[in-house]
Amino acid sequence: MPSYKAPVEDVLFLLNDVFEMSRYANLPGFADATPDVVEAILGEAAKLCENTLAPLNRVGDLEGCTRHADGSVTPPKGFKAAFDAYAQGGWIGLSAEPAYGGQGLPYTLGAVMNEFSSAANMAFSMYPGLTMGAMAAIQVHGSDEQKQTYLPKMIEGRWTGTMNLTEPHCGTDLGLLKTKAVPNGDGSYAISGQKIFISAGEHDMSENIVHLVLARIEGAPAGVKGISLFIVPKFNLNADGSVGARNGVTCGSIEHKMGIHGNSTCVMNYDGATGFLIGEMNGGLKAMFVMMNEARLGVAIQGLAQSEVAYQNAVAYAKDRLQGRALSGVKASDKPADPIIVHPDVRRNLLTIRAFNEAARALVLWVALQSDVAHRSGDEKAIQVADDLLGLMTPVLKGVLTDVGFDNTVRAQQVFGGHGYIGEWGMEQFVRDARIAMIYEGANGIQALDLVGRKLPANGGRAVMAFFNEVGAFLKENSGGDAGLAPFLGSLKQGLEHLQKATMWFMQNAMAKPDNAGAGSHDYMHLFGNVAMNYMWARIAKVALTRKGDPAMDAKLAVGRFYVERIAPETVAHLSRITAGADALMALPAEAF
Amino acid sequence: MPSYKAPVEDVLFLLNDVFEMSRYANLPGFADATPDVVEAILGEAAKLCENTLAPLNRVGDLEGCTRHADGSVTPPKGFKAAFDAYAQGGWIGLSAEPAYGGQGLPYTLGAVMNEFSSAANMAFSMYPGLTMGAMAAIQVHGSDEQKQTYLPKMIEGRWTGTMNLTEPHCGTDLGLLKTKAVPNGDGSYAISGQKIFISAGEHDMSENIVHLVLARIEGAPAGVKGISLFIVPKFNLNADGSVGARNGVTCGSIEHKMGIHGNSTCVMNYDGATGFLIGEMNGGLKAMFVMMNEARLGVAIQGLAQSEVAYQNAVAYAKDRLQGRALSGVKASDKPADPIIVHPDVRRNLLTIRAFNEAARALVLWVALQSDVAHRSGDEKAIQVADDLLGLMTPVLKGVLTDVGFDNTVRAQQVFGGHGYIGEWGMEQFVRDARIAMIYEGANGIQALDLVGRKLPANGGRAVMAFFNEVGAFLKENSGGDAGLAPFLGSLKQGLEHLQKATMWFMQNAMAKPDNAGAGSHDYMHLFGNVAMNYMWARIAKVALTRKGDPAMDAKLAVGRFYVERIAPETVAHLSRITAGADALMALPAEAF
Repeated sequence: MPSYKAPVEDVLFLLNDVFEMSRYANLPGFADATPDVVEAILGEAAKLCENTLAPLNRVGDLEGCTRHADGSVTPPKGFKAAFDAYAQGGWIGLSAEPAYGGQGLPYTLGAVMNEFSSAANMAFSMYPGLTMGAMAAIQVHGSDEQKQTYLPKMIEGRWTGTMNLTEPHCGTDLGLLKTKAVPNGDGSYAISGQKIFISAGEHDMSENIVHLVLARIEGAPAGVKGISLFIVPKFNLNADGSVGARNGVTCGSIEHKMGIHGNSTCVMNYDGATGFLIGEMNGGLKAMFVMMNEARLGVAIQGLAQSEVAYQNAVAYAKDRLQGRALSGVKASDKPADPIIVHPDVRRNLLTIRAFNEAARALVLWVALQSDVAHRSGDEKAIQVADDLLGLMTPVLKGVLTDVGFDNTVRAQQVFGGHGYIGEWGMEQFVRDARIAMIYEGANGIQALDLVGRKLPANGGRAVMAFFNEVGAFLKENSGGDAGLAPFLGSLKQGLEHLQKATMWFMQNAMAKPDNAGAGSHDYMHLFGNVAMNYMWARIAKVALTRKGDPAMDAKLAVGRFYVERIAPETVAHLSRITAGADALMALPAEAF
Repeated sequence: MPSYKAPVEDVLFLLNDVFEMSRYANLPGFADATPDVVEAILGEAAKLCENTLAPLNRVGDLEGCTRHADGSVTPPKGFKAAFDAYAQGGWIGLSAEPAYGGQGLPYTLGAVMNEFSSAANMAFSMYPGLTMGAMAAIQVHGSDEQKQTYLPKMIEGRWTGTMNLTEPHCGTDLGLLKTKAVPNGDGSYAISGQKIFISAGEHDMSENIVHLVLARIEGAPAGVKGISLFIVPKFNLNADGSVGARNGVTCGSIEHKMGIHGNSTCVMNYDGATGFLIGEMNGGLKAMFVMMNEARLGVAIQGLAQSEVAYQNAVAYAKDRLQGRALSGVKASDKPADPIIVHPDVRRNLLTIRAFNEAARALVLWVALQSDVAHRSGDEKAIQVADDLLGLMTPVLKGVLTDVGFDNTVRAQQVFGGHGYIGEWGMEQFVRDARIAMIYEGANGIQALDLVGRKLPANGGRAVMAFFNEVGAFLKENSGGDAGLAPFLGSLKQGLEHLQKATMWFMQNAMAKPDNAGAGSHDYMHLFGNVAMNYMWARIAKVALTRKGDPAMDAKLAVGRFYVERIAPETVAHLSRITAGADALMALPAEAF
């Protein structure tokens, strides 16, 4: 059975040494997050994930969720106890507002816990994950009364949350949605319609489930401008806020999925269920995006998480499995064969994964810190810069970390040869689980379009210019420094040039012909991710070079070198595909496909 | 439920127009394969695959194979009847020797049937597939008596075959294998040991199962030089060749696999089972390679096949699913949204798959024709050239077609958004089934090493020089021809230069330091595949350009252009990774992983 060890040391290195988290001590919640407190918190997080969540990962896959005839759903054995432990540890409210019982700690630490728990048990981590997403929407758009009613219970883990967007005929294009909301006359609405793919939609792990549901109020404008967001509790609430009678929402069936079997992904039927408008009437999309943005970062982290746990297990196998002899001569002469980690191609697979994992983790923390600044700073200018970067990087992280994260689970599986294809070894589950992250919360094609079509041009390109300036400034500051940094700076400089050329090409070619933006969007997203990770490697290397001789730091430099030599060169192919434009894509008539 | 339509037209175009199969009429079996006969055969093949095998694909996945307490195994419902239809159609002996009841038709046609049946139902196609692999070994290495005893029954489909190589502790490194063979004194051997991952290992679809088993004769040398190949029938044969008492071989369990559930992949226990040496004593590896080479091409074809069926279903969905509006303006104003095939990024996914499929199919047929020449020609020189190319291209096809074929099933799944993750749509099965092809019959890392370490240097590089000369001659002959061919020639010329540079780099850097070969082998294999497919596109385009205005030919040119603009540019990144050498891979000590 696979195992998992949370990369606490690496996170501490990134937070303390690369990003110098202490610089943010003036932000609310950061003063409490001193290095020793952070270390203690991450130690507890690691313990819960390694000892409680990870052992349930395969059980959850094999057992899945069971829907009973009455529509109730039982999650896999052990999940309820694990959820209680998660809630009692205070993890749901880790970065939530103290006014509602949260701990108010940095969101950045929540992102770390998200990585650990998703790596240990992705299907499980979605139960608290969806709850936190729903909490975010209530926090931002809910009335005071709604916040008072829902947040404390959700933070405690007594109630959980869901997001209800998709319908059978509409996923990406929410303008098509049909779920109806009819005013009841008492301020509430009667919600009717069918939602599909609802993660954590029904289960018995919490006393109540707070469904956030997009629906169309009778008479509302067509399209996305007529969508409103509603709170629909599984059980109606009594006047004192306690759980009352069952509401008109039921689980119609559980989806038969490729993976994340431990999560109860439901078809939810709303049949005149009582719902309460949250945020503005017809402003549902905006309210939903609060959830979506946080959820997109969460999904990006799932990509990293599956890549990390798959890597760890592939390494263990590669050190253990004896097969063949090293090309450069026998290494383990006392054994019938050498461990396969001697083979360059096995190392290529492992290092491809690791060079991604360590840079992706840095990227997540860097962006999470922007999120904390954007949401907690009092400085308008700082907020704007951070919010720009957060908006720009969210689709990049969602698309790139889940695409590459999935590829990496496949690479790790490959290290196992035939055993990788067999359930008992656990590697194929990582592949199946990781696959969904490329799809949900906006399929990666949508992320790419969001990046190129919305985030790039927003405010005259202010966000992307800020990114270019930051990387450009780093290059300037550090050129002529430690010679060991030169390869990192060299490939970063080249990547940045390719990214700038691609950006310029869109400016010149996509206005008149929007298909040129769509045609290059996927490559642009990956080009951006490649350069952003190169930037992270350069920042990591800069610190590591000051501590040569420390094995962990020497390993960083070796893995970073691999990135520079093997992964960075992909930018040139991305650029050439982008500048090829849309013609070859649009030439074929639809009927000729 | 997904559907499948065999690409008969495309195969006929390739065979008749691109490769001019009529040029081979002097080879045994080819004179019978006139264009109208071939068309009729492929029509029958298509019918069987579309109507009988494809409808069983999801059934097979859901139901899987059942092992009963007595060790007997029942395949999914419908498989036995389908196997009977397959056998009665004469498909098992399509290209087998007429002396034993085969039809003696070109192997090339067998490769086509392999594509169709693997696309329709990969798990099913492995039952006849393994049988044909075992037949090949008996044909080449069996005694006259062994051929007479086994081949006719196998060609009829009354008996099936298996390949038994892998043991729990040894897959790639067969030198480690432990299965024992002890002489019985009567010319037979008692075989004892355990084999794992045995496809079609046990089932009730045939009267007998002919296991080909690698084992070590008592006292044989250690390592691969002490391995012999044995025929071990499930039921011993009576003196008249009829099926007698049960032999000492049983299915211990069925492996729990990620996919190909319809195939009974078994742990096989040999407990003093009666076996008969086939080929030379201690020459088992050589005999096994006859099966392996054919099997490797067969697996390459599985990669193409899954990519093709996934493409077809993704296209159907993309034309049907309404979501969003075209970037260039509304296309289906009568509908609530445009079909998603209007979106450039959806087309990018589809065209990436199709540009591969059509070139990969060409490559398969081109190599299959080499195989026919190598095995049927009477001209020593022609045999040598064909055999060289066959040996060179086999690992390229196995590695590239299964790697990219798998990626393409993932791309096709992505087109479906959330529905791609749901079992009922069938797309996730293609992903799970396709995954095994990267692993079995030599994991793709082994293919890459076979290419770089054995096939490249063999006979002083004769094979690769022949490939370079052929492509070079094509470039020379066609430069200055139709202007429409220029982009194909341009990218082919550049790709060939990159491939030649990479080859040269190995010659200069891998002799002294073999790790340099291992470190670049994966990229070299994919670089080779990229150039070979570009070559196929150039040959296809050359024909298509003579028939502009024909929609099928215009589509070829459009898809080929996509290849040239979007896929061909990857060669530069491969070259730069290859020439980076092994240092970055080998720097990290094993304990630092």
